[in-house]
Amino acid sequence: MNHLHRIGLLRRRLTRAGLSGLVVTHLADLRYLSGFTGSSGALAVTRRAVSLFTDGRYKVQAAEEVSAAKVRIVSGSPAVAAVEWLAAQPGMDTAGFDPTVTTVADLTRWKAALPSGLRRAFLSALAAPLVSALRQTKDDHELAVMSEAAELGCRLFEHVLGFIRPGIAETEVAAELEHRARLWGAEGMSFETIVASGVRSALPHGRATGALLPRRGFLTLDFGVILKGYCSDMTRTVYLGKPRAGERDAYQAVLEAQEAGVAAVGPGASCGEVDEAARSVLRKAGLAEAFSHSTGHGVGIEIHESPRIGAGQKTRLQPGMVVTIEPGIYLMGEYGIRIEDMVAVTKTGGQVLTPAPKALIEL
Amino acid sequence: MNHLHRIGLLRRRLTRAGLSGLVVTHLADLRYLSGFTGSSGALAVTRRAVSLFTDGRYKVQAAEEVSAAKVRIVSGSPAVAAVEWLAAQPGMDTAGFDPTVTTVADLTRWKAALPSGLRRAFLSALAAPLVSALRQTKDDHELAVMSEAAELGCRLFEHVLGFIRPGIAETEVAAELEHRARLWGAEGMSFETIVASGVRSALPHGRATGALLPRRGFLTLDFGVILKGYCSDMTRTVYLGKPRAGERDAYQAVLEAQEAGVAAVGPGASCGEVDEAARSVLRKAGLAEAFSHSTGHGVGIEIHESPRIGAGQKTRLQPGMVVTIEPGIYLMGEYGIRIEDMVAVTKTGGQVLTPAPKALIEL
Repeated sequence: MNHLHRIGLLRRRLTRAGLSGLVVTHLADLRYLSGFTGSSGALAVTRRAVSLFTDGRYKVQAAEEVSAAKVRIVSGSPAVAAVEWLAAQPGMDTAGFDPTVTTVADLTRWKAALPSGLRRAFLSALAAPLVSALRQTKDDHELAVMSEAAELGCRLFEHVLGFIRPGIAETEVAAELEHRARLWGAEGMSFETIVASGVRSALPHGRATGALLPRRGFLTLDFGVILKGYCSDMTRTVYLGKPRAGERDAYQAVLEAQEAGVAAVGPGASCGEVDEAARSVLRKAGLAEAFSHSTGHGVGIEIHESPRIGAGQKTRLQPGMVVTIEPGIYLMGEYGIRIEDMVAVTKTGGQVLTPAPKALIEL
Repeated sequence: MNHLHRIGLLRRRLTRAGLSGLVVTHLADLRYLSGFTGSSGALAVTRRAVSLFTDGRYKVQAAEEVSAAKVRIVSGSPAVAAVEWLAAQPGMDTAGFDPTVTTVADLTRWKAALPSGLRRAFLSALAAPLVSALRQTKDDHELAVMSEAAELGCRLFEHVLGFIRPGIAETEVAAELEHRARLWGAEGMSFETIVASGVRSALPHGRATGALLPRRGFLTLDFGVILKGYCSDMTRTVYLGKPRAGERDAYQAVLEAQEAGVAAVGPGASCGEVDEAARSVLRKAGLAEAFSHSTGHGVGIEIHESPRIGAGQKTRLQPGMVVTIEPGIYLMGEYGIRIEDMVAVTKTGGQVLTPAPKALIEL
C-alpha cells in the first residue's frame, strides 16, 4: 500500500499550511495513512517522523498492519499520548488537528496534557481538512478495490432479483442480500440496508422492516458492501407487477435525471453543476418538490465522504474522485423511486462502477 | 414509550446544573429522549418546550416516531437550527451542550449563528454528561427489550454450534450467525462479528476473516444483535477437538474470573471492585499480564456506554444498569479465551441476561 506516499503528500500540505505536525484521530484517516484497522488509535505526523499510538489489545494487529509508522502501545488515551509525543519532538511550533472530528472535550484534555507554556498556541485547528482532502482523490489501488466492491454490489442485486416475490418480508430480502454479501467476501454492509416496498418506498431512508412485499408496487433497494475496507453504494428501484402509466413516466423521469447527472460528471465540473444537471430534469417533469435531497456524495473508506454533490456546491471534480449520483422522488402515501450509481471521475469524464441494468425491471 | 418521563428527568438535572436549556445532537440520545431514529437531527430542550429539528428526508418518519417533541423540518443544519431556536426562547440564560459529542467545528458554527451578544456565554459545556447519565439506568421497558435481545443472542449461539466444523471459513460462521439474526428479527449486528479461531483467538478483536477453522483449537465468538434499537453483546469460546490439559486449565481460570465478576455485580459495588473481582482470579492463576483489557462496559442503545468496568473506576452500580462482564486472556502465537455475559443490576444483585452455557464446549 502507498502509505509512505500518502504521508509524503500530507507533509507537503502540512508545510503549505505552516504546521510542523499533525495529530490524526479519525479512524478512517488512520486506516488511510497507515493501514491500521483497530478501533482505538491516534497518529502523530511530523516532517520527519510518524508514530501510531494504540492500546495493548492491538499490539499484534498493529505490528502486522502498520509499516509506515512506528507503533507505540500506550495504556492511557492514544490521542493524548500522540499530542504529548508531538510536543516533545524537536523543532515543533504548532501541531494541527481536524476540528470536524475533534470534540470539545478531546481538545480540553489534550491541552491539559501539554506543558503549560504550550497550552495556548501549540494546537491549531486546521482551516481546511488535510487528510479527508487527500482521501477525496483515490489512487489506482483504491479505484481497483472500489470497482471490485461496486461489482460485488451489482452481483448481489442480480442475485436478489431471483429471490424477491410478493408476500415475503422486507427483512428477508435484506437478510438474503447481506448473507450473500458475506459469503461472497464482504466484511460487512456499508450502511443499514434499505428495502422499502410499496408506500414505504416514499421514505428516502426506509430501512428494511417486517412489511411484506406487495403484489403491485415499487420496491427500492439501497445497499452497499464493505470490501477490503472500502464501501460500495448503489440503489435500484424495481416494480412488482405491472406499473401504471403514471408510475412508468415517473420512473423514466428519475432515470433521465440520473443519466443526466452521470453524464455531467467529469474533471472540472463543479458539484453544483452535476446536481443541477440531474435536478433540472426533474424540475422540467414537475417533480422538483419531490426530489428532497442532494444528488450524491463522495464515497471511499467511509460511506459518506466529501465532496457533496448538492445545489450550489463549488468543489470541482478531479480525476480519482468517486461519487454517487442518486436522484430520487418521494410521493408521500403513494411511492418513491431512486436510482443510484457510483461514478469514478476520469481524466476525460466519468466511469460508472455499478453497471447493473437501470431500465425498469418488472418482477 | 416514556419519552415525556425521560424529558422530565432531564429537566430536573438541567435545573440542578443551572441551565435553562440543552442542545442534544448525539443520535443515540435523540432516540432515547424522543424515539427519533433518523440519521440527522437535533433536539432542543427548555424548561417548557422541546423541539426536534431534522431535514426533509425524515418528515414522514419523524412525524410517525416523535410525539414528545414538536418536529421542525429545516433545510440547513438541524443543530444550528436548534441553537438558534434555543436562543430565541423567552427566559433563556445559558444552554448546555455535551462536549464529548460536540466537535470543535460544530461549536464554532453554532456560536457564529448566535446574535453577537450571546456568542460568549450562551453556550455552556456540560461539566458532567446529562443524557448519557440518564441512559445508564434502564427502565423496565428497556430491560425487557434488552433481555429479548440478549436471549436472541443465546439462540444464535446455540444455532451456530450446529454449523461450526473444521475447514469452514470464519466468515462463513459469521455469515450464518448474521443471516439467522436477521431472519429472527434483528435490525442488524451491534458490531462487527468476531470469529477468531486457533492462534487468531489470541487477538482480542479478531474480526472474522477467510481463515479456516482448525481441527483442533479454541474458537472465540463475540457478537451482538440490535433488536428494537437496543444492543446485545456476548462472547463464548468453544474448543474444536480435544483440549490439552493446559488449555482446559486456562479456560477454567477465565470462567472462574468471569463468574467472580458476575457475582460482584450489585447495587453499590464500584466498577473498580467488579473489575478487581475478575482480575484477581486471573492474577492468582498467573495470567494477569494476559488479561490486557478492562472487564466490561455498559450497553444499551449503543454497544459501548458508561459505566466502564475497569481498574480503579469509582462509579457505583445502580439498579437498572446493564453491563458486560468479559474477562479474557490472550497468549500470542498460542490461543485466547474470553467469556462474556450481559448482566443487569437488580435491587439485590445481578441478573445474567445471557444464560447460554459456559462450561467448555468441545465440538
